[in-house]
Amino acid sequence: MNFELNILGCGSAKPTTRHQPTSQILNVRGKFFMIDCGEGVQAQMQRMGLSMMSVGHIFISHNHGDHVFGLPGLIGTMDLLGRTAELHIHGPQQVGELLEFLAHTYYSDIQFKVLFHPVDTRKHALVYEDRSITVHSIPLQHRLPTCGYLFREKPNLPHIRREMIDAFGIPVSQINNIKAGASWTAEDGTVIPHERLTTPATPSRSYAYCSDTVYLPELKDIVGGVDLLYHEATYFHERVLRAGQTMHTTAVQAATLARDAGVKKLCIGHFSASIKDENSLLGEAQSIFPNTVLANEGLVISI
Amino acid sequence: MNFELNILGCGSAKPTTRHQPTSQILNVRGKFFMIDCGEGVQAQMQRMGLSMMSVGHIFISHNHGDHVFGLPGLIGTMDLLGRTAELHIHGPQQVGELLEFLAHTYYSDIQFKVLFHPVDTRKHALVYEDRSITVHSIPLQHRLPTCGYLFREKPNLPHIRREMIDAFGIPVSQINNIKAGASWTAEDGTVIPHERLTTPATPSRSYAYCSDTVYLPELKDIVGGVDLLYHEATYFHERVLRAGQTMHTTAVQAATLARDAGVKKLCIGHFSASIKDENSLLGEAQSIFPNTVLANEGLVISI
Repeated sequence: MNFELNILGCGSAKPTTRHQPTSQILNVRGKFFMIDCGEGVQAQMQRMGLSMMSVGHIFISHNHGDHVFGLPGLIGTMDLLGRTAELHIHGPQQVGELLEFLAHTYYSDIQFKVLFHPVDTRKHALVYEDRSITVHSIPLQHRLPTCGYLFREKPNLPHIRREMIDAFGIPVSQINNIKAGASWTAEDGTVIPHERLTTPATPSRSYAYCSDTVYLPELKDIVGGVDLLYHEATYFHERVLRAGQTMHTTAVQAATLARDAGVKKLCIGHFSASIKDENSLLGEAQSIFPNTVLANEGLVISI
Repeated sequence: MNFELNILGCGSAKPTTRHQPTSQILNVRGKFFMIDCGEGVQAQMQRMGLSMMSVGHIFISHNHGDHVFGLPGLIGTMDLLGRTAELHIHGPQQVGELLEFLAHTYYSDIQFKVLFHPVDTRKHALVYEDRSITVHSIPLQHRLPTCGYLFREKPNLPHIRREMIDAFGIPVSQINNIKAGASWTAEDGTVIPHERLTTPATPSRSYAYCSDTVYLPELKDIVGGVDLLYHEATYFHERVLRAGQTMHTTAVQAATLARDAGVKKLCIGHFSASIKDENSLLGEAQSIFPNTVLANEGLVISI
């Protein structure tokens, strides 16, 4: 079952020929959760063969242009493509102003609803839930209200041992009960315990997105142990003062958080336009947290 | 002296992997006049090596997203790049609403002025003039107020014949007077007429942009004889009814206008996403107006 991150853009605000502004898609079993929506997402999705119609929810970190200016065109294109399904957009209150303006000025007659769900960026709280996953906000600190998002699969059910089902002649109608924890009583009264009929569930997977933000060591409690952490790493550590002034993070800081939080893998992005040698940036991060990779347009990380 | 058209995008509203939404830059002696500003212009300018800081004026045809959604990001990037020079944006009144929203919501503290100049799309009138060129609006008919733009170099001055200047010992200080039409009176009273001291001026060049619009045969009076006409050609002629319904033009219609207006060259663009074989579209146009070319991202046409 898919649980994979697609990087559409991982540059910072000043555009370069190397990177697009920020956007990602977390593909959870074919449902696309978009995270941030910088200019050019449509073109990038087409290049990567990702359907715009599969996006049901968009989670916006903050209302800076390089994280939202793909929304106007994306909404229009979804309408041109004949969308009728609701589109849910989650984000800080300010994002609602953009959506209201678009609805009023460009999209008064589109054929689907765009529903805005304001997120309180000061809280670590549940912002979305369905049968498969939960999404919690992660309070961040940037130049305007900003939050990250933590995606967690719900606990999976154990796997049925097909050979045991056959051996005991258990009817197909009972399989869901057994998955849910039931044992099986044979006709002779023998009880075959749940544990003999199943193998343990696949561990549920998790992904945390943290951009844009200053270095917040306390995030280790929220993102602790996640399978993948995406964290901004706008600057080399020699520019740590600049990072603080602009409320961004260095690669060393991102890696320190990954190490302290005991995450399984770190992906760094939101590279300053001034950074030409990203491998050196990666080296800085890996010196602290070896299992670090560089984001790049088109990168897909299966979790 | 440059007078060249740079195509940044020539697709229509529905994005494809082949084309970006509409935008162009007319480079007049190093001054960049942008025409329409679809999403992705910044990335395309960087690919083409065109500096965003050289754009002084932007002319918008109409307030559909595929012609304006590059503006939000472009303005922000100009500020990040340290722009202080005024940016002038010309277009139908509705474009002003977008600029007002951006100024209020995203750009209350940028370091340069964005000045909006509303254009009456029903009139063929002067909308801009400097020492080198004039720009006139071209009334078009689309689903909301729309106009094209006609760029004309002002008449050039004649060229000085350097060898005559030397032969008659004419001081450098007199050259501008001679260019402007003066003759020269030598010390012995001989008058050397202006025509002997100069060769005729380079003809002044002209470019007309018409997109989006239904076919308007009467435009031939306005664009008559221009060096280059860019005209939308959204559809094959077999879809002429669809063109009428959506208020667009077919390649045959664009070529008919070019022929009837006696333009020197036609460039067609704004291709429907449904068109895979653009060479056939070109063939349709060339059957009526042979000197037609297809627009394409990165194309530069020197006029």
